[in-house]
Amino acid sequence: MSDKTTQKDSVNLSRRSLLTKGAAAGGALVAGAVSARAASPDPLITEIQDWNRYLGDGVDAKPYGVPSQFESNVVRRDVAWLTADPKSSVNFTPLHELDGIITPNGLCFERHHGGIAEINPADHRLMINGLVDTPLVFTLEDLKRFPRENRVYFLECAANSGMEWRGAQLNGCQFTHGMVHNVMYTGVPLKHILNEAGVKPEGKWILPEGADAAAMTRSIPLEKAMDDCMIAFKMNGEALRPEQGYPVRLVVPGWEGNMWIKWLRRIEIGDEPWHQREETSKYTDLLADGTARRFTWEMDVKSVITNPSPQAPITHGRGATVLTGLAWSGFGKIARVDVSIDGGRNWETARIDGPSLSKSVHRFYYDFDWDGSELFLQSRAIDEMGNVQPTKNELRAARGVNSIYHNNSIQTWQIKPDGSAENVEIS
Amino acid sequence: MSDKTTQKDSVNLSRRSLLTKGAAAGGALVAGAVSARAASPDPLITEIQDWNRYLGDGVDAKPYGVPSQFESNVVRRDVAWLTADPKSSVNFTPLHELDGIITPNGLCFERHHGGIAEINPADHRLMINGLVDTPLVFTLEDLKRFPRENRVYFLECAANSGMEWRGAQLNGCQFTHGMVHNVMYTGVPLKHILNEAGVKPEGKWILPEGADAAAMTRSIPLEKAMDDCMIAFKMNGEALRPEQGYPVRLVVPGWEGNMWIKWLRRIEIGDEPWHQREETSKYTDLLADGTARRFTWEMDVKSVITNPSPQAPITHGRGATVLTGLAWSGFGKIARVDVSIDGGRNWETARIDGPSLSKSVHRFYYDFDWDGSELFLQSRAIDEMGNVQPTKNELRAARGVNSIYHNNSIQTWQIKPDGSAENVEIS
Repeated sequence: MSDKTTQKDSVNLSRRSLLTKGAAAGGALVAGAVSARAASPDPLITEIQDWNRYLGDGVDAKPYGVPSQFESNVVRRDVAWLTADPKSSVNFTPLHELDGIITPNGLCFERHHGGIAEINPADHRLMINGLVDTPLVFTLEDLKRFPRENRVYFLECAANSGMEWRGAQLNGCQFTHGMVHNVMYTGVPLKHILNEAGVKPEGKWILPEGADAAAMTRSIPLEKAMDDCMIAFKMNGEALRPEQGYPVRLVVPGWEGNMWIKWLRRIEIGDEPWHQREETSKYTDLLADGTARRFTWEMDVKSVITNPSPQAPITHGRGATVLTGLAWSGFGKIARVDVSIDGGRNWETARIDGPSLSKSVHRFYYDFDWDGSELFLQSRAIDEMGNVQPTKNELRAARGVNSIYHNNSIQTWQIKPDGSAENVEIS
Repeated sequence: MSDKTTQKDSVNLSRRSLLTKGAAAGGALVAGAVSARAASPDPLITEIQDWNRYLGDGVDAKPYGVPSQFESNVVRRDVAWLTADPKSSVNFTPLHELDGIITPNGLCFERHHGGIAEINPADHRLMINGLVDTPLVFTLEDLKRFPRENRVYFLECAANSGMEWRGAQLNGCQFTHGMVHNVMYTGVPLKHILNEAGVKPEGKWILPEGADAAAMTRSIPLEKAMDDCMIAFKMNGEALRPEQGYPVRLVVPGWEGNMWIKWLRRIEIGDEPWHQREETSKYTDLLADGTARRFTWEMDVKSVITNPSPQAPITHGRGATVLTGLAWSGFGKIARVDVSIDGGRNWETARIDGPSLSKSVHRFYYDFDWDGSELFLQSRAIDEMGNVQPTKNELRAARGVNSIYHNNSIQTWQIKPDGSAENVEIS
């Protein structure tokens, strides 16, 4: 995925532009530094860089590894004012600190309705009941005897970017777009489990239910359940994390995160939807005329620039600059991402790098020389079905500003001459 | 990737075979259990499964998440007798506990020669010197201004499976094959950095050097350096872990792990190899005639069954069984994996599931009904270049048994009627 413009930007990082930036950044990248150092030892190396003078920790220090102490700022963050209690709240993936397409398990955003159920897997069961030939109860070991698959999918909360409906609110992509993560799931296709129980001809919907205190439930059409839904027990190779539904969660590719029932304990099969709290009072989209869209499951095509951004300003001065971000769609693969540095007047095609997988985030880059002037950065994703990410005003014209869900509009970051960034709106 | 036999096994998990296994495993998977429960409440649900009766931890509990307390056995393990001190030792990835193709960062095996350098990234520098037009010194921020790429690669220690040369030694794939991991790297193609300095026409080799106490160095041909080598600063989305070279390591796709210099601080360009300790005294392959193979960089095509295996026996009794494992090759993608349950007399093609990427591990499955008899499990990988994984005796006939490096031979696990597994050799 690249066009001529991007190719040029990628390969034409001239020596001159890099030397200029080196000087601007404090002189580290300067030709001749080596010979100067030979004549007069650099105090950085002789006094500060002392890590090669002693033996470090051995292999027995951390049987399960943790990040460097210098990365302590790379964490999930909540906004305490958002909810009455952290047990029914959300925290956000630090998108501005990440790259590639895999979200590390320890940094996947959380959203709970009754706190994290701490389940002993040996005592956990999954029941299939309702309109089936044979009601069944599965242990975790039973589930692991069915054929497995491995798929990388994004999970996005329907309320991601929800506070942006009424204007630029939160100053950083961790908070505006951080209710998304992307991991490789290992599990059993749900159809295998449903076929084992035998769905009766009148069975048209399923109701997965969580084993947490909130007993989360959502109605899902049988057609989706038999298509690409999974019962997952691993994420990024290891067991699900407790906050992501350990020991088993439902995976509903491309659809809103609320439906990916965690701590999955029961799936009922019925002939019509149940109209539960989470699909009536919540997770519906209130329109300008007072009516509400319901069953808006698919997550629309979307993208955001993660760097530079308010939490990750440009600190190196003018010259060669890497702009990067994420794009995703509940309808399949991303076909193209465009980037504008002038608030949407001109667009260039970004370079997508890394695996391009259906219903997974895609990583894009736009490599350019910053001249130090004010910029208005935007990204616009287009998926393989031809869906195009709308502007904020286009979306508002269609849906009003009453909803908190399904805001997939184009985000703008203002870059100031000092390199700092701000969440702004341009009309 | 599947053949007719596998397809049949995948879809023909008959109700009968599952009900049989359910009974054998303790009766959890039994038709009618639901109605029985309605009449007489199951004590498991009413007394033991109490996690839905109280609110769990909220989102502020762990800003950087950790695994469930019930997964405390999923850790890297060393073998204390292997080396004099853990600072120059190795620990092993728990392959038998993982699935999919991504190794979580906290579980990637470690190998150090002088312990883990704990580097402050603000003070770290990368120098390019030797046969270049302009010697250069880069800060981490400088490196992040070059165009980036994202690639999933396996890293395997040349000594992986090294103790198996003289016969079955270690009882578990974590120890026989656990010096391999597979992550998505984000970084800068090395060619961009070398081109920035300008390699002189007589420059034919590079010598990357680590900033740890061991100052690890290896000679690498310039052709490989300019092909697919990367300077990586992220793994699986986040910063490299300290034990994996934080803040920057060299990525040398498909080649032995010892060359992937961690804590990378310098790259010298020269006109011939340096013949350092790690490519003369160590990491050479002593043959039967007393001569040694040198510069054996590529990791040969290889596979191992991770489940069932000695650390992960069959506990569910006969019936539907998922056999799974990993295959990889330093020469590209895996084209096919064959599985034998009778010690190599008959072979079936396994099902590869998940992304098939060059120089990355591939996950394979073989779904079969176990009849409870003794089995001798083997897997045999074939890569896209046509390389075929050899038997142990084929490899010994070619190379003798003096080496500890580059053992890519077929591994055998004996499955006993009670489901336990053992590392064995069959002639």
